[in-house]
Amino acid sequence: MKRLLLATLAAVGAMAALPAAAQFQKPEDAIKYRQSAFTVMGNHVGRIGAMASGRAPFDAKAAAESANIVATLASLPGTAFGPGTDKGMPNRAKPEIWSDAAKFKAANDKMIAEVAKLDAAAKSGSLDAIKAAMGAVGGSCKACHDDFRAEKYSN
Amino acid sequence: MKRLLLATLAAVGAMAALPAAAQFQKPEDAIKYRQSAFTVMGNHVGRIGAMASGRAPFDAKAAAESANIVATLASLPGTAFGPGTDKGMPNRAKPEIWSDAAKFKAANDKMIAEVAKLDAAAKSGSLDAIKAAMGAVGGSCKACHDDFRAEKYSN
Repeated sequence: MKRLLLATLAAVGAMAALPAAAQFQKPEDAIKYRQSAFTVMGNHVGRIGAMASGRAPFDAKAAAESANIVATLASLPGTAFGPGTDKGMPNRAKPEIWSDAAKFKAANDKMIAEVAKLDAAAKSGSLDAIKAAMGAVGGSCKACHDDFRAEKYSN
Repeated sequence: MKRLLLATLAAVGAMAALPAAAQFQKPEDAIKYRQSAFTVMGNHVGRIGAMASGRAPFDAKAAAESANIVATLASLPGTAFGPGTDKGMPNRAKPEIWSDAAKFKAANDKMIAEVAKLDAAAKSGSLDAIKAAMGAVGGSCKACHDDFRAEKYSN
């Protein structure tokens, strides 16, 4: 049993990036990770947005679950824009992410802060509070996309 | 008793039918969503696995954060294997996901349960508890991949 456990742990461990500084072995891993986090976040922001705009019936429990998912993931993409992760697989990262890193960090921090407020609003169960928070979340998404996300994918 | 049973069945039916059908406009959206959730989960299981196997230094706070991310995402992929989501973009879902849906659900439920135990172990801060939980998590990942994930992508 112990040997099986150790073998399983070794196999799982092999999936992780070895260097302590980087959680990603290849630029492709970082790109895939950040795109994946954004995909799940976008889906759940969309679900809350549908409720906030009246396109879907308000379900307080579902909204709170989605907001918790978005808040849990919000800080992840920003960890995966390390040097050299502009190429490796098709992605939409603009060069300004690295050439204007301070502005990019500010935009990322703003998103994280607004998502935290959305999470608190959703936990309160108030649709009006969710609507207000969603406006700011949507604004933070759009601002960062406008400045740092290209129209088309490049490799 | 019969009315209670019928009401229960109706409620279960609604739970099963609503999320998958309503939250994804196209099969491609569901495939991308479940692949994205698995990508982020795999990365963070890998980080904990690296600590559990001694390939990375143990960082209790980082392990707990990763376990929380995995636990928050664990129930998401299972909502995105609705009928018709076998095709739409390249993916590795085997036909058995739909032809042996009960077994797939059991494998998915097992993973969710083991991830919840990992989350509790990581919150405790005990590396030994994390190691024990990781063995079961890794086993649940492997069992489901063996039965329901194809070697190669198909469209």
